Parts: sequence; C-alpha cells; structure tokens
Amino acid sequence: MMEYAAIHHQPFSSDAYSYDGRTVHIKIRTKKGDADHIRFIWGDPYEYNGGRWSANEQPMRKIAATDMHDYWFAEVVPPFRRLQYAFVVSDRHEDIFFGSSGVCPYNEKTLETIHYYFKFPFVHEADTFQAPQWAKSTVWYQIFPERFANGREDLSPENALPWGSKDPDVNDFFGGDLQGIIDKLDYLEDLGVNGIYLTPIFSAPSNHKYDTLDYYSIDPHFGDPELFRTLVSQLHQRGMRMMLDAVFNHIGSASPQWQDVVKNGAQSRYKDWFHIHSFPVKEDNYDRFAFTPDMPKLNTANPEVQRYLLDIALYWIREFDIDGWRLDVANEVDHVFWKTFRQAVSAEKPDVYIVGEIWHSAEPWLRGDEFHAVMNYPFTEPMIEYFADGTIPASRMAHRVNAHLMNGMKQVNEVMFNVLDSHDTKRLLTRCRNDEKKARALLAFMFAQIGSPCIYYGTEIGLDGENDPLCRKCMVWEKEKQNQDMLRFMKRLIALRKQENTLLTEGHLEWNLLDDQNHFIRFSRTLEEKTLIYFFNQGDAARHVSLRDLDIERNKKIYDVWTDQPLHHHDVIAVQPGEFFILGAAVPV
Amino acid sequence: MMEYAAIHHQPFSSDAYSYDGRTVHIKIRTKKGDADHIRFIWGDPYEYNGGRWSANEQPMRKIAATDMHDYWFAEVVPPFRRLQYAFVVSDRHEDIFFGSSGVCPYNEKTLETIHYYFKFPFVHEADTFQAPQWAKSTVWYQIFPERFANGREDLSPENALPWGSKDPDVNDFFGGDLQGIIDKLDYLEDLGVNGIYLTPIFSAPSNHKYDTLDYYSIDPHFGDPELFRTLVSQLHQRGMRMMLDAVFNHIGSASPQWQDVVKNGAQSRYKDWFHIHSFPVKEDNYDRFAFTPDMPKLNTANPEVQRYLLDIALYWIREFDIDGWRLDVANEVDHVFWKTFRQAVSAEKPDVYIVGEIWHSAEPWLRGDEFHAVMNYPFTEPMIEYFADGTIPASRMAHRVNAHLMNGMKQVNEVMFNVLDSHDTKRLLTRCRNDEKKARALLAFMFAQIGSPCIYYGTEIGLDGENDPLCRKCMVWEKEKQNQDMLRFMKRLIALRKQENTLLTEGHLEWNLLDDQNHFIRFSRTLEEKTLIYFFNQGDAARHVSLRDLDIERNKKIYDVWTDQPLHHHDVIAVQPGEFFILGAAVPV
Repeated sequence: MMEYAAIHHQPFSSDAYSYDGRTVHIKIRTKKGDADHIRFIWGDPYEYNGGRWSANEQPMRKIAATDMHDYWFAEVVPPFRRLQYAFVVSDRHEDIFFGSSGVCPYNEKTLETIHYYFKFPFVHEADTFQAPQWAKSTVWYQIFPERFANGREDLSPENALPWGSKDPDVNDFFGGDLQGIIDKLDYLEDLGVNGIYLTPIFSAPSNHKYDTLDYYSIDPHFGDPELFRTLVSQLHQRGMRMMLDAVFNHIGSASPQWQDVVKNGAQSRYKDWFHIHSFPVKEDNYDRFAFTPDMPKLNTANPEVQRYLLDIALYWIREFDIDGWRLDVANEVDHVFWKTFRQAVSAEKPDVYIVGEIWHSAEPWLRGDEFHAVMNYPFTEPMIEYFADGTIPASRMAHRVNAHLMNGMKQVNEVMFNVLDSHDTKRLLTRCRNDEKKARALLAFMFAQIGSPCIYYGTEIGLDGENDPLCRKCMVWEKEKQNQDMLRFMKRLIALRKQENTLLTEGHLEWNLLDDQNHFIRFSRTLEEKTLIYFFNQGDAARHVSLRDLDIERNKKIYDVWTDQPLHHHDVIAVQPGEFFILGAAVPV
Repeated sequence: MMEYAAIHHQPFSSDAYSYDGRTVHIKIRTKKGDADHIRFIWGDPYEYNGGRWSANEQPMRKIAATDMHDYWFAEVVPPFRRLQYAFVVSDRHEDIFFGSSGVCPYNEKTLETIHYYFKFPFVHEADTFQAPQWAKSTVWYQIFPERFANGREDLSPENALPWGSKDPDVNDFFGGDLQGIIDKLDYLEDLGVNGIYLTPIFSAPSNHKYDTLDYYSIDPHFGDPELFRTLVSQLHQRGMRMMLDAVFNHIGSASPQWQDVVKNGAQSRYKDWFHIHSFPVKEDNYDRFAFTPDMPKLNTANPEVQRYLLDIALYWIREFDIDGWRLDVANEVDHVFWKTFRQAVSAEKPDVYIVGEIWHSAEPWLRGDEFHAVMNYPFTEPMIEYFADGTIPASRMAHRVNAHLMNGMKQVNEVMFNVLDSHDTKRLLTRCRNDEKKARALLAFMFAQIGSPCIYYGTEIGLDGENDPLCRKCMVWEKEKQNQDMLRFMKRLIALRKQENTLLTEGHLEWNLLDDQNHFIRFSRTLEEKTLIYFFNQGDAARHVSLRDLDIERNKKIYDVWTDQPLHHHDVIAVQPGEFFILGAAVPV
C-alpha cells in the first residue's frame, strides 16, 4: 500500500503557481518509490457538460527525487485562466484520489464531489513572479571595494597599510576605492563577468561599511558621486550591470540619527526610529543587529523611517542608474516594508534586480512582490559539503539540491543569486583545503546549475582565505603572483555559461549517479533537442565512459563542450581523478 | 521505524507564525501514531555560549489528529524576537532530528550544524495577522434584502408579487427593502445577533443585485442613502454591526461602463476596464463571471479600475460608517488588488472586518495583508456531511475539522465567518431533510466551534428551501407560521454563544468519539479552569453518561449549561436520540 501520509501538495505555493501569467505549474510529492504514475485531472470550475463537470486528464512527469520523496510535475494552460484540479495516484495495486480533503477513494462519487478538488481560481499576471530578463543571463562578480584595487592613493585612509602587505585584521585599511574598480574594467570585461555587486560604498567608519553613517554619500576613502557615476556609466557602456548593497536592517551607531538618541535620550526626535527599551541607551537596552552595539536596528514600521529608506533606494537609482539592490540582513526586516520597497523601486526603474541576503529557504520573500532572488547559500551548501568538505555522499548532495529546487518556483530558481563564497564565508579555495582541482570542479558544477552564478573577487586568480577577516584579502594584481591557470579556467567557464545560458537556465536537470560510492557523478541539462552531459570524477582512479552506452540519438552531433572538439559515438572518454568532462549533444543546424 | 517521508513542517506558514507580535506558534505533523514525543529545540540565532550555540528545549503537545496525521504544537516568546529552531522526533526505538534539510541523525554533529535549523528571523508586529477585536464576539445574521421584510410598499417594483405568495422563481420580486430591516431591528436584537450581513444593496436589475449597475446608489427598490444611514445608525445604537457585500470581480452588463463598451467597441474609454478578446463584444469574447454574459469581469490590474473600486469601498465606510465588507468571488480577483484594498480600507477605518467569498482553503488571502476571514464552507462542510447527509462517520468529520483548523493560524480561525448555509446553498433545514432535530444539533455543533457563527435569515423560525432560487424565500412574519420552538432554541443558543464566547473562541478543542459507530460524539472546549463538554447523540437509542466517569476534578462545580441547572458528580445524564447535552465544569468563583 502506498504511504498516504506522505503525499503532499500545497495549493497556492511553489506546488501550484503561475509561471508566466498563463501557464500553471503543478507539483506533487509522494514517498520515494511509492507511486508508479500520477494523473492530473483538471478543468474549468464552471464548465459542465450534461450536468457533469468537464475534466481533462494528463499524465504527470516524475522530475526529481530526494532520499525520501519523488516529485511529479505537470503544466497546463487553462483556457479561461481558471483551474480546478486533483490527482489520481497509482501503484500496481490501487488508484487513489488526492484532493483538498486529502486521500479519497477513487470512484465516481469522489470525482463528482466538487469540493474535493483543489482550486487555482484565476491565473493573474499581476500575481505572477516576474524578474528582470537580464538577470537570467548575468554572471556576477562580487567586489569588497576596500580590497579590490587602490586607484587613488590620495583618498586612502591615513592609516592605510601597503597593498597586500599582510593578512587583514578586523580593523585594517588598505585603500581600495572606486577608481581602482574603474581601472580594472578591462580586466573584468576580459574575464567575462557582466554584473558587479559591490558591498557597501556609503560613508561608514569600518572597512566593510555595513555600519552606515550617511546613506547619501560615497565613503570619502572610496571616492565621490562623480567617480561613482563614471563607474556606472562605463559599466553600462560595456553592457555590464551594477548592484549596490543596502543596509536597511540597521544603521551605524556613528550616524546622526543614533547620535541624536545617545545625546537627547527620550527627547530625541529619532527615538522612534529604533527599538529602544529604556533611556538613556546603554550597550544592551536596544535592538541591535545580532548583539553588535555599533549596529542599532532600525524600526522599519515607522513611516518616517520607511520614507527615509525608500528615498535612499530611489536616489541611487534615479541619480546613478544602478541596476540592482542587494539587501543586507533582509530576513530580519518586516515584509510590509519590503513590499513597499519593491513597489517603489519597480515604479522608479522596472528592471532593477532585488536580492535579499537570506541564508535559509526564503519562500515568503520570493512570491513576486518582494525580492527577485536571495543569496542562494542553501542551494550551494550541499555542493560544498560534497566536493570541498567530503562530508556527504553525492547522492545526498543531489537530493538536497533537488529538494531545494523543488521548493522554489521555476522562474525564481532561474534568477537566484548563486554563490559559493562571499565576504561572509571562508573562501572557496580554502574550504577546498587549497585543492585547486576541487575548487574548479565546484565552480564548474555550480555554473552548470539553474540560477545566476556569482564569483567572489580573486577566486579567478586563486585567492584563498579563512573566515572574515581573512576572506577579505587584498586582490593580487601582479601577474606572476596570480594563478594564470585558474584565470584561464574561469574565463572559459564564464564564456561557456554565457554561450549555453538559455539551456543552463531553463533546461531540465537529470541526475545519474554512476557508481555506488558516488565518486563519479553524471547529470545532464536538456533543453529541447540539445543536451549537456556533465561528468565529475571525485574518485582516485580515472573513469572511462563509452559514449555508445549513453544512448544518444545517432542524428546528434556530439562534442567536447570545453574544447569544442567533435567526438564520435563510438569514442570512449577518460575523466581523470578530480577532473570533469562536459559532453554536448545537439542536432546539427 | 517512523515514517520519515510523512514528517512535515513548513516554515513561514501556519506552521510557524507570530500569534500576537511576540509569541511564535509552531506546529509539526507526523504520521498518525508514529511519534511518541517531540522536543522543540530553539534559541536566538546569535546567542553563543563558549563557542556553542545556546539552545533551549521544550516538549511539544499533541493537539490534534486526523486519519493520517498527528499535529504537535509549541509556543515560545523569543527574548530578542529572533528564533532558530528544530525538532527532535522520538518513538520507542529512535530519536531523529528534523530541520531545514529534513531528517538528520540526532547527534552532536547535527546539533552543531547551524544551517540545519529552521529560522524565524524576526517576530514583527507589522507581519502579524490581526483582526478587529469585535469580530471575535459577533454572532452574524445574513439578510437577502429583497426577501426579508417589505417596509415601504411604495418602493416595491411594479411587478412585485404579494409577500410570500409563492416560492420564488429566478426573476421574481417581492418588495423587501431597508425599511423592512429597520422595522425588524427589535426582533433581531431580541434574537441576540449583533452583526448583520446584507447581500448587495446597490442599484442593479436583478433581485439578488450581484449585477451591479451603480455602486454609489442604493437600489431604489430598497431605499435611499438616508434610509441606509438610518439603518446603520440604529444598528450602532444597539451595539450591532453592518457588513455590506462588494461585488468587485465583475460589474453588471447594464452598467454605464459596459454599455459604453457595447456601444463604442474598441473606441470606448472603458475598453481596458475589462478583459475583452475582440471587438465588437458578443456573448463570449470577453471574460465573465463563470460563463454569465451579464457579468463582465473587471480588469483589476488597471489602475483606473482599482481607483474606481477603492473609492467605492471607502465611500461607504466614510459616508455611512459601515463595519465590514464581504467580497464577492474574492478568489478570482488578483492579490495585488486585495492588498491595496486592505491598506486603503484599514487606513480609513482600522476595525473594518473584511470577509472574502472563498469556498476552498484560503491561506494566501489570510496572511494578514488581505482578508480577516472567508466564508468558511470547508470548515462546516464535514459537519453537514455527518449530521445532515449522513455520508461520513463522525471520526471522518472530526478529522476533517481538525485538518482544517490545523491549516490555519489560530488568530485566523478565531475570526472566521462560519456558515452552515447561505443564499448560495440549500437551506440547512432542507439539507437536513426537514429533520428539525438534526438542524438544531448542527447549529449547536457549529456554535460550539472556534470562529464567528452566522445564521441565514429565517433559520431561526424554521424556513426551508432547496438551492437558489428556493433558498431565497420570503421571511415569514406571522407568528403562527413561525416555528416558535426553533426561535426559542436559537435565542438560547445565541445567548449561550455570547456568554461563553471567550472560551468558545480561544479554548482548546478535544475530541472523544465515544463509540465505534460514532453515533455518540463527545468533545470538550477548555480555557484555563473552565470546560464545556458537548455530547451529541446521533444514534437511535438514548445514551447515558455517568458523570463520575468523566474524571472532573471534585472542586469543580458542574452544571447543565443549557438550563443552567447544577449537577452532581454522581449524576447520570441521559441524552435522547437526536439530542445534545452540554456539561459545564468550572471552579466556583
């Protein structure tokens, strides 16, 4: 008997949503291996034929599995944009009806009981999650400006240390600035990235600038408005995008607003800008980011604070034409504020990309009326645990990747901000214990997945670093100190991503874990007639794949995607330990 | 082994929500009978002690069961309003950790892996579902104005039939009006109801007025603005509330907007007010409510339409001080519009109660930023199927009631608009095949549940009727034709509800289905030291309950709640076939 208690479908969620304002995507989950097939029964709730409800039926496709569950998928375009539906779940022994009252016997009486069906009452474009088109084809590059390049020594803090002279301590300055970034735009364009995400650049005492002092000025050590304007406009000329970091959960304690509270206590006109438990303010009688006294939490339920923050968000779009906002500690700010933020920002410039810093699953922020994406740590974490840490088998990794993808709407997954590391984590290479091959495999693996990949500055030349502050080392610009192999690798990887972007964004993912020990992973990405098959060898011995065994249609041209060299259907390829191989198969045009 | 695939907890849902801006409610579901106990592990995500995350632990309570699942509950008040949590699910043989990556082994390594925990990042009042307090203590009375009372014969349509002279046909008029309602306010107050819901009263050709012609005028057959103002003010003087019906999904085809489209086609300035597929408009080339040509669907994504509808919503609040809006076909209008509607209405008058007409589970509309309640058909449907139809056993009824309650946040369930019948269904008495005892049992049963009960006009005097149009018969006012027993019963039932309202709203529900055949149902509602125990005998023989067997603490006073007569702990009570009994147990004050 099938495990009824494990069947799950949540209406009005990523299990049932409008993909494009017309097409409805439907998913249902069953216990792994339980159901042999599932039929999707659907129709218009008002369409009757001779007194009987007119229902259509179509088979669902099993699209993913985890260690516990199978996921089934169907898509329909309801002709009148209204949908009433249910499922018939079957194994060898029985058929059951699954609807809004759970499991029911599959018989005429059930089928005719209209309130046993789920509803998707109307498919509205207004309720459909939509993201800027450009976000789908962007490869991001994250810059921590204090450490990327020093282009104007005259702007550097007085106590700035010589560039790269030591590993950074928490309070060190090295003098990176916006001119440094402008100077390196050829480098970035040559690398191939087409989106730049800068951690905060507004005036703030620290080197990371997450303790904002003035949201309206560029930090004087970084530059000035004109320099920033030049940076954005030169980026745009190169077809590249600019995303800034908005720290709206809290403000710096050096800000005039907080200083006014410190000075005037309960009489301060800013006292309701914060969450203060008593006056005068001491170290711990107000809400802070984490328990950091320097970062008093803003009261985003206060309309004055809302207006203040929204004006900032709009100012940098209107005056400097930025393309994206990354929102710091976004999960600790209320949804009401973010909805208002989204409306205001989208009204100012409709294709601004909004990315929340959320480390956990983030469904409520990704319903279409708040963010377009989040920093997708939960998606990449299992990849890192498998490749870098070696703490989980490949099957577990694949299952967690699948579970994460199945938790999201497809159009959300398509524009997610995928990161392997950042200013908040160990660097990738360090997490890989300086095993460069592992780092490359991980990068290649992540670049093969749905979502917009982001690399953290320096990854491409082999920069390493433990957790903050060591993940914020100065970028290395001397060619001889750069890992040129890594750089060539990254250029190829980025170029490949851009070339195959539609397939890698929209294509179906299918896993084939080739051996029991899970040291040789295979998966494919397929869109229409084209397939890329990825092989990752994480074992100790070379692995050979006879292409004949892959059952690729003979009319397809096959080739080594990395080198673009043609292959033959009778070839055998070798994948060396630690290496990967990408096989392309496409109908010749 | 426990069935891992059936364990379910959805973060940021009715499984994890802010109850009051401080307290977080947490639910988790397991396969029925699987887990022996569940511990809830929680703490502040930033609180560490000697490098280890500081976690608290508390047992969860099993609060409900269905045929498939057990539901477990915990509540916490996180001191810094931030919550990180997971579950340890145990049976006799094993303990497993359940977190954001699903089931993990319960060991030190898992416990220390912070990204395996769920997050509730910050408890915001702004994100908390809140409803008007008064809604919790309201007993509603639904009136279909054309059929309630004719107070001004001079306003009646020319073709009005003599009051109650026949069963209504689809297009009949009988002349009910607002003066009729005013004339009966003493009657309604005496009955005990304290909220009146009127189906539409704006100008419209039909008798039901769901085909609005002019949203700004009272239908001339019903009265005029002055009469309506008088009605509302007299209601308010009696401490009663007024809810109107807003038909915003569609407009009547007789409306000037649609007529302009009919006349001017693609040149009409109203052409974007609708969803028109081609011009000129014919019977079926535009979106309609269902497939009804008289009811062209409004394009609520058009800002002009939004403004138009919002102005209407605000006008009737501002000018006439109404207390609630019931929203017709609310599920087919987009969420973006309803969020704007909620903001505008709440800004105009914060304690307006907003009820959507949604017949299915309605979670996305009940997150706190759209409606306060929906017409709660899915909650009462299993009660009706058990009592009236006799098609499901009591256990199935209880399970479906439980599943429905577990699907909602507690504060939503508390203000839901509970109906057993309406102008859109068979009348209760008819669904009970005119078995008056069954109708009474059902009413008593529904009045004993969480949520605001509503009765449909005439229920209290024994009005019957098949589906529309027969459920819209003229109210009977001749005392000798009214069922006076039913009227006395309803007065007592309503009085009881109001007297025990806090307990019936907030109290815990516990089922004890007393016999195998489920013909004798027992459940209790408990709040603090007070309990009401309900017994419903739906079998053919009298049932006896020895109060001694109920294990009620001896210090509690026990009594017959209906008659208010004291009982003794050694009494035996008899519940006759079809009847019910309510036992009260409370510590004397």
